[in-house]
Amino acid sequence: MSEKASATLSVGVIGLGYWGPNLLRVLHELPEVGALWACDVREDALVSVDRRYPSVVTTTDAQAVIASPELDAVVIATPVSTHYELALSALLAGKHVFVEKPLTASVAQAEHLIKVAADRSLTLMPGHTFLYSPPVNLIHELIASGELGEIYFISTSRVNLGLHQPDIGVAWDLGPHDFSILRYWMNELPSQISALSRSCIIDDLPDVAFINLGFPSGAIANVELSWLAPSKLRRTAVVGSKKMVVYDDTSNEPVRVFDSGVVPSAPETFGEYKLAYRSGDIVSPQVEAAEPLLLEMTDFCNAIRTGEPPRSNVQVGVDVVRICDAVDRSLRIGGAPVGLEPEGRIRLADGTPGR
Amino acid sequence: MSEKASATLSVGVIGLGYWGPNLLRVLHELPEVGALWACDVREDALVSVDRRYPSVVTTTDAQAVIASPELDAVVIATPVSTHYELALSALLAGKHVFVEKPLTASVAQAEHLIKVAADRSLTLMPGHTFLYSPPVNLIHELIASGELGEIYFISTSRVNLGLHQPDIGVAWDLGPHDFSILRYWMNELPSQISALSRSCIIDDLPDVAFINLGFPSGAIANVELSWLAPSKLRRTAVVGSKKMVVYDDTSNEPVRVFDSGVVPSAPETFGEYKLAYRSGDIVSPQVEAAEPLLLEMTDFCNAIRTGEPPRSNVQVGVDVVRICDAVDRSLRIGGAPVGLEPEGRIRLADGTPGR
Amino acid sequence: MSEKASATLSVGVIGLGYWGPNLLRVLHELPEVGALWACDVREDALVSVDRRYPSVVTTTDAQAVIASPELDAVVIATPVSTHYELALSALLAGKHVFVEKPLTASVAQAEHLIKVAADRSLTLMPGHTFLYSPPVNLIHELIASGELGEIYFISTSRVNLGLHQPDIGVAWDLGPHDFSILRYWMNELPSQISALSRSCIIDDLPDVAFINLGFPSGAIANVELSWLAPSKLRRTAVVGSKKMVVYDDTSNEPVRVFDSGVVPSAPETFGEYKLAYRSGDIVSPQVEAAEPLLLEMTDFCNAIRTGEPPRSNVQVGVDVVRICDAVDRSLRIGGAPVGLEPEGRIRLADGTPGR
Amino acid sequence: MSEKASATLSVGVIGLGYWGPNLLRVLHELPEVGALWACDVREDALVSVDRRYPSVVTTTDAQAVIASPELDAVVIATPVSTHYELALSALLAGKHVFVEKPLTASVAQAEHLIKVAADRSLTLMPGHTFLYSPPVNLIHELIASGELGEIYFISTSRVNLGLHQPDIGVAWDLGPHDFSILRYWMNELPSQISALSRSCIIDDLPDVAFINLGFPSGAIANVELSWLAPSKLRRTAVVGSKKMVVYDDTSNEPVRVFDSGVVPSAPETFGEYKLAYRSGDIVSPQVEAAEPLLLEMTDFCNAIRTGEPPRSNVQVGVDVVRICDAVDRSLRIGGAPVGLEPEGRIRLADGTPGR
Repeated sequence: MSEKASATLSVGVIGLGYWGPNLLRVLHELPEVGALWACDVREDALVSVDRRYPSVVTTTDAQAVIASPELDAVVIATPVSTHYELALSALLAGKHVFVEKPLTASVAQAEHLIKVAADRSLTLMPGHTFLYSPPVNLIHELIASGELGEIYFISTSRVNLGLHQPDIGVAWDLGPHDFSILRYWMNELPSQISALSRSCIIDDLPDVAFINLGFPSGAIANVELSWLAPSKLRRTAVVGSKKMVVYDDTSNEPVRVFDSGVVPSAPETFGEYKLAYRSGDIVSPQVEAAEPLLLEMTDFCNAIRTGEPPRSNVQVGVDVVRICDAVDRSLRIGGAPVGLEPEGRIRLADGTPGR
Repeated sequence: MSEKASATLSVGVIGLGYWGPNLLRVLHELPEVGALWACDVREDALVSVDRRYPSVVTTTDAQAVIASPELDAVVIATPVSTHYELALSALLAGKHVFVEKPLTASVAQAEHLIKVAADRSLTLMPGHTFLYSPPVNLIHELIASGELGEIYFISTSRVNLGLHQPDIGVAWDLGPHDFSILRYWMNELPSQISALSRSCIIDDLPDVAFINLGFPSGAIANVELSWLAPSKLRRTAVVGSKKMVVYDDTSNEPVRVFDSGVVPSAPETFGEYKLAYRSGDIVSPQVEAAEPLLLEMTDFCNAIRTGEPPRSNVQVGVDVVRICDAVDRSLRIGGAPVGLEPEGRIRLADGTPGR
Repeated sequence: MSEKASATLSVGVIGLGYWGPNLLRVLHELPEVGALWACDVREDALVSVDRRYPSVVTTTDAQAVIASPELDAVVIATPVSTHYELALSALLAGKHVFVEKPLTASVAQAEHLIKVAADRSLTLMPGHTFLYSPPVNLIHELIASGELGEIYFISTSRVNLGLHQPDIGVAWDLGPHDFSILRYWMNELPSQISALSRSCIIDDLPDVAFINLGFPSGAIANVELSWLAPSKLRRTAVVGSKKMVVYDDTSNEPVRVFDSGVVPSAPETFGEYKLAYRSGDIVSPQVEAAEPLLLEMTDFCNAIRTGEPPRSNVQVGVDVVRICDAVDRSLRIGGAPVGLEPEGRIRLADGTPGR
Repeated sequence: MSEKASATLSVGVIGLGYWGPNLLRVLHELPEVGALWACDVREDALVSVDRRYPSVVTTTDAQAVIASPELDAVVIATPVSTHYELALSALLAGKHVFVEKPLTASVAQAEHLIKVAADRSLTLMPGHTFLYSPPVNLIHELIASGELGEIYFISTSRVNLGLHQPDIGVAWDLGPHDFSILRYWMNELPSQISALSRSCIIDDLPDVAFINLGFPSGAIANVELSWLAPSKLRRTAVVGSKKMVVYDDTSNEPVRVFDSGVVPSAPETFGEYKLAYRSGDIVSPQVEAAEPLLLEMTDFCNAIRTGEPPRSNVQVGVDVVRICDAVDRSLRIGGAPVGLEPEGRIRLADGTPGR
């Protein structure tokens, strides 16, 4: 390895569909990254890379990337059904691995990858980009600091026309964004999950899903996901006992804090309840303008160098897959609520769920 | 009865809380209405009526209203727990009766009132005001005419800070609006209902509820209700195979029609699916500016005169109560889906549910 | 006069067009007001008053109102061209007078009315309702307290489709709202006025006007007025050296305070200027929900009782007419800037403009 | 010249401040463009180019770019005060020239460049990017086709906090966008211009300007420009006799067409005017998603190849400079209206203004 290579990381990106080109662009910008390879089975995707980034090595052969002794790390942005196999090969080839969300298509696959990576002291990182989003972090701080009070409920919509995935339903495609955010904010995992979905366009491929979640703290959440909605909507309301927040990542004012709430007076009997509604100022805090993907890739590089887990770590990755799996289990039994763990499941010896 | 009285209806309004004064105001405007009585147990509510409408007879005695031979009809806008008893007394006293939504606190109560009214050929009308809302009617026409195509799903939020009811949860308070609208638009009743709710402020009084509904046609719906949300939100999305609609009754443009959709091409094998997304014009149709409550009260007067059922008729009323009841049943068993009919229930001889 | 009459004011409202019915409604609510008369030349306007307010005396004869010994005060909501004559008659008949904005159709008329009222110790009040608007008052406080810093400029749009006036152009119809607000906020009168307008629909009746104003403090303002705009727009931006405010009286959040600004560093030479842009939080302060018209009519009653000038006093009234007059003078000379005082004008001995 | 070079254009970009990097990015994407040079006096700007586009030749010497025999064309994105000299040198060196708006800092400079380019049959193109904006073109078609009817007035705001230019005021910086759009839409030049401005932050550098324009057709326009406004605002209203349009290039729905208007009935006398207001549907037409800058640079390449004038041609360029110049002349005489031509000006023998 050249001296330059030893000072920077060499990375191969596999998959140049919707998201891969963004990963490539950001890696190309990062001073931490040296040599770059890009791989896709579609030749035309490579032509556009060749033109834009003449220094990037392009190939249609994913195994060549995985096997290349030149590369330190592999970034996987392929369809979900291929995540496990590609990530496993890469880990076995001694590569650090970043995998786009969701980490894998099953809990068992995720747990196996985690074990393999741990055994080899390699970084395995799922791509939960929203954990690097400044508004998401700002709200995390508002919750963690107690400024919102007890969290009563969270309601979130993530809908837009477009981008059916070929191999996974909308709950596995868009859901991981919200599940990773909810886990991060609530600092707990849902204990009850129920779902209703429909496959409107393609048989057995749900493109709309309504998911209800109950948390051990008592908080509840409603997650609405769709590839079929008429207008782009990213709206999350977090209602706490002291303040409430609305988050919309498409807005110029992504976080709005409502200093509003209910002020119950102590009642003697039920009928004497007097509730006052406090309606105060609304504040749109200034939010840092950093690009989440750049922060995420920087964290991946740091994790490789230091051996420390990144913010979007494997525990986040497997927890999100478990929630997706619970959604599927609820759907299979007609929408009845299920727990996060399938009944009768034996956990790995070293595995305690969540944190 | 004077000649004038015979040409107009004499009406007593019982309950001058949040909604009653609006009913009184509209009845006072209507040329079809002659003498007006107003009743509330709180003296101060009557003082304000006396000042604003010197011609209105005021009393704290609901039974005096019900018993008065001067009155043709009674309008009931009291807490839900009192609806059944007041309406029953009024019907037995030979009065036509309008009851604010929901009609009653149970299906059995609703069915009994319906029977009593039918036996006496009296008009019994529940107050589902949204059936008189011009935007709701416009969307009804868009659906009925096939302009939207097959309805894939409906998602609706009705949330705002304020107005906890003392005797019913949010599903019984705000839910009837959406349930009556869904029934009207879909022309079918939900066959599967599941719900998640929480009583954040007062024990055993749910102030947030997430309700999932499945319809025989395959359509699904998500209804989010809350008295605790940070900003007023009335947003309903109706997604059809041809067009999509967003309805917001707080907006200057309450109905927006999106000429957008998915254009699937016939695939040979799954992997060959190619979906195109059609994104066309967005139209905000001009919507009539009529006040729904005025149309509703006019329909009540017409129903009394003609004996014909009003648009917001008893079948709507009982169906909405059945959906509210199903929500409660789902909540009692931890959120599992339930049907519209409780298992083992024996229907009244003359009762066929829905339409 | 009865004892009750001596404890309350008896008021006659002349003119029941667009605004008169609102004045009547509010006067009818006020405990300070006893007997009420309403007058319009159109019989059908009176019929609707009779129905809604049976206790109000109605007449088509304005002189009967003015001459009635029963009445203490007259409220004039007729076309502007009639303001002077009606107000003068009423003052000469010993009545206190409220006149809708603008006070009169000329400065000379305004000054004469003021003199007549002063000579007789009668209250004369122009109807500049926005001086009683909670958001306008909140912004007044933000400016007066120095929170916004030096006011750099104000830009305001007041446009909507509809309501052409028959006898005055848009600058005299909508302009008084903005002129009274600007005078109130800036605590100074414009020293330079220029205007561009067009009569699109009716010859010689401007229905769109763009007005530029310069103030002695250095502040400048742009006022856009139109009866022909496609969508209702009420947007006023106040840009100060420390903070900036956007005011929209049609919004749920009528006042938004931007903690943003330019932070210049001291430069040595021009080329070395380094400007930093500070972009901070945005706050929507909670604004009191009071109805401005109710506050205005209450102030009228108080002014009559106490003899103190109301907030919307005659000096405001005449100043606004002077600005309207300056707009006309600028238009007559092709849009060149003019001062507030016509050249060669001799002021009344007791008149000092502005404050 | 190599064969490849003969098939593509070689272009040098001078100036890598705010806009230059965008021009470079787009030129780098264009298949019509081969070799690329980039030039800036600031070394650090070049470092970032080197990293991102290793194939681009970088230099701090503008004259080297202009003189290079390798290059066919020069793109100038430097401060306005340098436009004339750089463009002149480049033309004299036989290069085709693209200059960011405004073309020059004076009318005489613009006219001289035009003459030099014409004499040498070189393409000279000013960068009025908005002429390539899909929404601007859509509105152009709505106007040209008569769909809006006669244009009554246009009101436009282009304001935002930030980006003070060191050498030109806001009217020369932001104004050219609106002036080029107005000229394009109206197909005529303003005959009367008046302006009010203020230099809030830096002496003699206006950072807010209110500009009124009158057109020969009778249309009037109000242009509000500021680097100091609290929130980004791009709102243009075009009011015609048949329909009205609102254009906001920051919105997801940049063009909204209001099928609204005034319907005057023929009056006998003034007082009998009856105006009806027609309020119809609002349509947001689907707007093509093309990037204007890409279309603009493609047009530049085509103009060079074909010798045909681009849409953003020199006549647009000089007309915009004339309007900016008129704004300055109005400001110098205290805001009085001026014509497009300075009085006593002698036009070039070949020059007829506007079209």
